[in-house]
Amino acid sequence: MKKLPLGKAFLLLEPGPVVLVTTASGGKMNIMTLSWHMVMDFTPRLAFVTGPWNYSYRALIKERECVIAVPAVDLSAKVVEIGACSGAEVDKFAKFALTPVKAKSVKAPLIAECPANIECRIVDHIAKHDIFVLDGVNAWINPERKERRTFHAVGDGTFVVDGKTVNHRKLMLNKLPPGV
Amino acid sequence: MKKLPLGKAFLLLEPGPVVLVTTASGGKMNIMTLSWHMVMDFTPRLAFVTGPWNYSYRALIKERECVIAVPAVDLSAKVVEIGACSGAEVDKFAKFALTPVKAKSVKAPLIAECPANIECRIVDHIAKHDIFVLDGVNAWINPERKERRTFHAVGDGTFVVDGKTVNHRKLMLNKLPPGV
Repeated sequence: MKKLPLGKAFLLLEPGPVVLVTTASGGKMNIMTLSWHMVMDFTPRLAFVTGPWNYSYRALIKERECVIAVPAVDLSAKVVEIGACSGAEVDKFAKFALTPVKAKSVKAPLIAECPANIECRIVDHIAKHDIFVLDGVNAWINPERKERRTFHAVGDGTFVVDGKTVNHRKLMLNKLPPGV
Repeated sequence: MKKLPLGKAFLLLEPGPVVLVTTASGGKMNIMTLSWHMVMDFTPRLAFVTGPWNYSYRALIKERECVIAVPAVDLSAKVVEIGACSGAEVDKFAKFALTPVKAKSVKAPLIAECPANIECRIVDHIAKHDIFVLDGVNAWINPERKERRTFHAVGDGTFVVDGKTVNHRKLMLNKLPPGV
């Protein structure tokens, strides 16, 4: 894993890919699949939606930290299956043959098989709306990972894979944060 | 424009495309470009981030409503330029040759050139985090629009266009909301 400057971490989430969120609590690690997230600023501050119906919720509330791992499309079937079972019944790292890697600043593990991972601290929980607000504290990329295309949940069981890139940098150079 | 069942409107936003947000206030219409949004539930309830630094903010606060229009990739240059100028100085519908269409339940206009539009009411404003929470109240698609691929902001001036679709419906049939 190679460190990514924190000011570039929002680039991993702004396109809206399906992500995995890992937690560690009470000596137990877990993974959830998440599509309902957004960037809030470039530092990066982030938000996602989850609530008590989700097993990871207890660990998020208790530990106030997590890792957001960004999977590539070759993991899409696993990512869907991770979202269709509960950590209450399943050791997801074992069942889905994913490798937890010790993070630098949080107890929640990075996922070795994901091209990118962001260590996050939960800075607010807006219980009324089931919104968690997070700050990224460290970001990592795996430069050896060949398949880097992410995928986006449509919400009906289908997923759109990253296609071609369009470059409009010269239309917005005065709008980009420093360093990206 | 053809009505889309409201229970399917979240499908337009869950993949995380760049969207346009229209407002109408004081007899003046405006458009902003937005990438920082997320789905919150299937009804659909949605959230996005914007604040006083954005000209549309005043109209959002005052009118408590807007339209979220989902542009296709053939509009990507316009969408970027819309995000790089301010409604304080520019009539964006005129400058960018976009056609406002009267909505059913809100004063903010639909955008004819966009393949999909969602009329929204603002149900909460979490000022501390610059988060707006919205309910979709009507959704429309333009079935005559051939180009329907959306595009996703990376955040560095490049944009990823929708590529191929992967179907994992059979892995998650018990997780899909009714009707999608």
